[in-house]
Amino acid sequence: MQAKTSERFTPTKRTRLKRLPKRAFYERRVIYQILDEAFICHVGFIDSDHPVVIPTAYGRSGDVLYLHGSVASRMLRALANRTPICVTVTLLDGLVLARSAFHHSMNYRSVVIFGVAAVVKSPRQKLSALRTISEHILPGRWADVRRPNKIELQQTLVLRLPLREASAKIRRGPPVDEEADYSLPVWAGEVPLSLVALKPFSDPRLRLGISVPSYIRSAKVQSFA
Amino acid sequence: MQAKTSERFTPTKRTRLKRLPKRAFYERRVIYQILDEAFICHVGFIDSDHPVVIPTAYGRSGDVLYLHGSVASRMLRALANRTPICVTVTLLDGLVLARSAFHHSMNYRSVVIFGVAAVVKSPRQKLSALRTISEHILPGRWADVRRPNKIELQQTLVLRLPLREASAKIRRGPPVDEEADYSLPVWAGEVPLSLVALKPFSDPRLRLGISVPSYIRSAKVQSFA
Repeated sequence: MQAKTSERFTPTKRTRLKRLPKRAFYERRVIYQILDEAFICHVGFIDSDHPVVIPTAYGRSGDVLYLHGSVASRMLRALANRTPICVTVTLLDGLVLARSAFHHSMNYRSVVIFGVAAVVKSPRQKLSALRTISEHILPGRWADVRRPNKIELQQTLVLRLPLREASAKIRRGPPVDEEADYSLPVWAGEVPLSLVALKPFSDPRLRLGISVPSYIRSAKVQSFA
Repeated sequence: MQAKTSERFTPTKRTRLKRLPKRAFYERRVIYQILDEAFICHVGFIDSDHPVVIPTAYGRSGDVLYLHGSVASRMLRALANRTPICVTVTLLDGLVLARSAFHHSMNYRSVVIFGVAAVVKSPRQKLSALRTISEHILPGRWADVRRPNKIELQQTLVLRLPLREASAKIRRGPPVDEEADYSLPVWAGEVPLSLVALKPFSDPRLRLGISVPSYIRSAKVQSFA
């Protein structure tokens, strides 16, 4: 039987929020919800003593985050080298408009993960990880498409990042102004922001008679199609 | 007279795309449009030999990017120390659904900037930079609100990052499948994604008789209010 992982990440020197501790969350449930909702992460790594930050897709299965890319990708090759990385995922939920410039803010949910990634070598595990990434982005798609063949699998580098050191930071709710400012004749409140799916475009080379599959409309973002 | 900056960033070892050079853009106009459209950036820096990536607001004025935060912020203090940083801005424009799992992709526009930030010390220049950040996020707001007072300015750290080394990476358009796959009976195309503004919430403590200002509805994202 596999050891049960704890329900909460242990805060470390790097993940403990010192300045705004009320915004910090360490529960796996909270952190995994944010990871599961976003489409992309920003991966930070060190290349020749300089920080580099690159956006990329990902997927999560249990306590592992998967990343993938071309074997020729500079980032993937750097990460495969067991270098320390930081993966950050951010959902921007709204603008927070206070009565004073100083108290303007944003509502957001973000996750910061520290760790070291390892190359997934077994073709079976690679395929499973690629399915995880695909289902993360668009549940239902994997069953519909041609699976990677042997050559495509060889051209793809898949990395697994065990989720051991992570924290979330969340701000929500209205602005918080200085008491004296609440009497100012200035509108204050929140402008919610949301990533939505618009009407799909069919590929110009789509064969006649193939309609948009239903799983696209039930995708994880609200549809304004 | 100020020297005219060139219209194009010179590609460097770090900003030149080797693998997909068709997706690379170095024109200031293209890069600045992406910077001006996004709300947040992801800042990468090195802290005790580890990469750290944090989301934050920003603003651009000419060839300078401004960042700001509390003087007590761990990130801001690290950046103020003339350490190399990487600032990445990503706009996710859509999911690209191919007939094969391998050729799935995303449409996006991203910018990667490398540089070293410096602290803006003069109160007048700090105020101007804060106005730039505010107007970047919501044009029209600055004129409406109470400006930072002397104490608030002292509590705010403002950094300027000269834009000298940057590139954009852009993917757009339909999926590109293997020739043999175009005959598969699989729907293929794009699902456009867009960040939109939803109906504003007034602060529960808003004084009676203050209506939502018109500049909120003309903000830079499409409004679904």
